[in-house]
Amino acid sequence: MQDQNLKNVTETAVNLLSKSPNPRLNEIMAKLIQHLHTFASEVKLTEDEWMKGLEFLAAVGKIGLSEFIMLSDAIGLSKVVNIMNHPPLEGITESNFTGPYYRDEAPLLTSPFKIYSGCEEEGEQVLFSGQVMAPEGKPIAGALIELWQTAPNGLYDCVDDTQPDYNFRGQLYTDEQGRYQFQTLKPANYRFPSAGPVGQMLVALDRHTWHAAHIHFKVSADGYEHLVTQLFFKGDPYIKSDVVFAVRESLIINLQKHDSPEEAAQHNVKNPFHTAHYDFVLKPKC
Amino acid sequence: MQDQNLKNVTETAVNLLSKSPNPRLNEIMAKLIQHLHTFASEVKLTEDEWMKGLEFLAAVGKIGLSEFIMLSDAIGLSKVVNIMNHPPLEGITESNFTGPYYRDEAPLLTSPFKIYSGCEEEGEQVLFSGQVMAPEGKPIAGALIELWQTAPNGLYDCVDDTQPDYNFRGQLYTDEQGRYQFQTLKPANYRFPSAGPVGQMLVALDRHTWHAAHIHFKVSADGYEHLVTQLFFKGDPYIKSDVVFAVRESLIINLQKHDSPEEAAQHNVKNPFHTAHYDFVLKPKC
Repeated sequence: MQDQNLKNVTETAVNLLSKSPNPRLNEIMAKLIQHLHTFASEVKLTEDEWMKGLEFLAAVGKIGLSEFIMLSDAIGLSKVVNIMNHPPLEGITESNFTGPYYRDEAPLLTSPFKIYSGCEEEGEQVLFSGQVMAPEGKPIAGALIELWQTAPNGLYDCVDDTQPDYNFRGQLYTDEQGRYQFQTLKPANYRFPSAGPVGQMLVALDRHTWHAAHIHFKVSADGYEHLVTQLFFKGDPYIKSDVVFAVRESLIINLQKHDSPEEAAQHNVKNPFHTAHYDFVLKPKC
Repeated sequence: MQDQNLKNVTETAVNLLSKSPNPRLNEIMAKLIQHLHTFASEVKLTEDEWMKGLEFLAAVGKIGLSEFIMLSDAIGLSKVVNIMNHPPLEGITESNFTGPYYRDEAPLLTSPFKIYSGCEEEGEQVLFSGQVMAPEGKPIAGALIELWQTAPNGLYDCVDDTQPDYNFRGQLYTDEQGRYQFQTLKPANYRFPSAGPVGQMLVALDRHTWHAAHIHFKVSADGYEHLVTQLFFKGDPYIKSDVVFAVRESLIINLQKHDSPEEAAQHNVKNPFHTAHYDFVLKPKC
């Protein structure tokens, strides 16, 4: 402690940790302290800026945990943690955030596997299909797919009184060939709330608050690791600047437009309509 | 955004900032994002640990700004910011934290410059004296010294109903020779509150929550920069492990014990008593 300079403060703070009985907590705090001290020193943080930073955290704290999660999302930290804990593996479908809107016990869908009711005029109809399979291509029959997305108004059922409960959500099982299909409307881009401190931070940084439109999936099958992921749409304006950095190249799919009254009638949808296809590849449990 | 790996997430998050109209905010956020991402990656932060971290911040936020300041103090970040903004200069008294207990408009002291009333039985009497001077040794007459400290019970007046208002606080002016003196009782070590999340963090890290005993000073004189600092006492058990890393070698003073009924009578104090001496050297304004 004697004769501290900046480096000495960091060393003293880190050395005090060596007494802690929890080596993992030691390791995490030591690295965090080193990085925060180096950050402050590299940007030559002024006392005013330091206080503004703490006041910002206090404003985030006034809202609570959800706002801290949003902060972590908005600075890409959540994505780093997500990728690190589910590193992309050759030939396996990539993981993505669960996000705050997952609900279990969504209705089990039956043919024609339509996941919504109402608002047909407002969105583009999509016939979605694909397979769930093992890495070598073997179909996985009886895999459980849970899916959830926004309505065309950009809102999830649970924050929108105008929608029936569990709208744009569903569960279904793959058939003998591992195949699944469902009918939906294209989900919409939606925004982070911009009134809170994190939204205000994004405004100050001249960053928009939009998510790229996406559908959430959770896929479970005996003998395989759970997969939680999201699929995005080619051409979405926020593909490259999604507010939480969720978009991954391998998770972008194509919406194919069909303009054929016969096909539409055959599928019992309005003309024109869209199709989309995605095959999920699960990782076998070790 | 395409094909992100960890590094790519960081780059994407930083590159988004380049649009911000506030270059300083850009610079601060870019470095903070880089350091937080690197931290998470270096310690291989798990999703559980990430969530525990956010829950900890939410608990800190529930208490508010004061708890965030305490957190910054406890991890040495406040000290880094303090040193960086007031770098030690050869021959000038070193700066230190103002801390949360400064109050302006403390009573102006007159001879014998006693800054307290009551609790004489509980503490060791100290006759404190010194000079305020310019770097070349020229005394500064009429410099304003504001000082504040804990009572022997370890509490500041403003958080202790048993003390008169403004107890252990005072203002005084240096005389023609730049000299000052005051009578006090030795301040006590005191603790961070350990019930809150930051206190609990320190407990989990097996760190104590004690401050080294100190007296706060603010010294102001025309033509010189304000000096805010703290003086500590040689032999204090927390000199090397002060909870907020405040102690600096150049700010440790010696308490000299005097056991002489004659001297005590001359100064109108009880025998034995202590003396302490410190000369403040101010930095001329540029």
